[in-house]
Amino acid sequence: MAEQHTVKAFDEDINRLRGLIAEMGGRVETAIDEAMTALVEQDLKKAKAVVLGDERIDALESEVERLVVQIIALRAPLADDLREVIAALKIVGVVERIGDYAKNIAKRVPKIGDHRTIEPISLLPSMAQVASEMVGDALNAFSARDALLAEAVIARDSVVDSFYNSIFRTLVTYMVENPKTISECAHLLFIAKNIERIGDHATNVAEMVYYAATGEYLPERDKDVKIES
Amino acid sequence: MAEQHTVKAFDEDINRLRGLIAEMGGRVETAIDEAMTALVEQDLKKAKAVVLGDERIDALESEVERLVVQIIALRAPLADDLREVIAALKIVGVVERIGDYAKNIAKRVPKIGDHRTIEPISLLPSMAQVASEMVGDALNAFSARDALLAEAVIARDSVVDSFYNSIFRTLVTYMVENPKTISECAHLLFIAKNIERIGDHATNVAEMVYYAATGEYLPERDKDVKIES
Repeated sequence: MAEQHTVKAFDEDINRLRGLIAEMGGRVETAIDEAMTALVEQDLKKAKAVVLGDERIDALESEVERLVVQIIALRAPLADDLREVIAALKIVGVVERIGDYAKNIAKRVPKIGDHRTIEPISLLPSMAQVASEMVGDALNAFSARDALLAEAVIARDSVVDSFYNSIFRTLVTYMVENPKTISECAHLLFIAKNIERIGDHATNVAEMVYYAATGEYLPERDKDVKIES
Repeated sequence: MAEQHTVKAFDEDINRLRGLIAEMGGRVETAIDEAMTALVEQDLKKAKAVVLGDERIDALESEVERLVVQIIALRAPLADDLREVIAALKIVGVVERIGDYAKNIAKRVPKIGDHRTIEPISLLPSMAQVASEMVGDALNAFSARDALLAEAVIARDSVVDSFYNSIFRTLVTYMVENPKTISECAHLLFIAKNIERIGDHATNVAEMVYYAATGEYLPERDKDVKIES
């Protein structure tokens, strides 16, 4: 009886943990999408909302941490269960960082002003969409313990890297031809880099999910974009 | 007797954990310093050594993770001890990322070529030195459970941010006046940003150390550099 009781309590804790992570993931995906909309539509109010919304994401991370410590202390989980709560702890650390990248994009919006003449910007929203979907799928893979979905996320990182290389080259060419836009373009370069890092971090999450689901590490890959330009 | 035995085994585990983290920290500090030397002296061989050396840093992170899971599973640490091993897990995640920034700087060295005419580069090594010392002190604070040293690390992040703002402005001005150097300067901008992020991550580590040492969270600060330019 006592053991059943403990198992049930553990399952409830794990469900609460998954719920918190799902909420955090949803908020981070929204933050990325809203930051890009704010950029494209020069919507400073929306940009500010993304910056402020990051506090809730940080608070969710702290909540997960406290819950993990509590689960370990009270339930003393073994093997697979312990691996899952440790994976949860690591995953929220990465998701929090993805939220910071979205916030960073939003913070740059007021520095860029009217960029509609800067042609390379047109690729950024498509790039961000791929990265944002990677984040969503990585967290879905975590909820479903789906190692295959995790691998699919990892495979998509090269799409984000290709976008980045293309945007880097186009922006540099544009800066050479339009030196007056260099400051704005530098911010756009950093935005492209932020999105590229979101893809890397989604890949990190997917690798952790793969490990939590299978107990095996994927061979170490170099997530960095190849610095071609 | 049995309990004493467990306590001793736990202390041995914790010492091994601290040893691994100290080794990792030492390697990361060296990686930052060597990457900057490679940049300043245009030493491609040294840059490559930094890139290759990152594998050992990643391996140390995995070793710490395995050890933490083992400690939790075998020793079932309570309260303060559990907080310390969880902090160790989070800290190595951040230290690994700092290693990635050093690797990223090293990877850009061949893209920059002869930059000795680019004046803003002269500030980068001093900036990197402050950031690298912050990393070292944050890890010393962890070994010594020294909350005051952790706070001192956090306070120094504003120095790194000031360097960053100054370098950003100087580089943008330089690019406007010398459009032929834009591609090299873009890489230098990213290097400055990498160093700024190293400072942020050292601050993150210091915050975790503060929490592990005192059981209290410091008030949430905005580590991001103010985007002035």
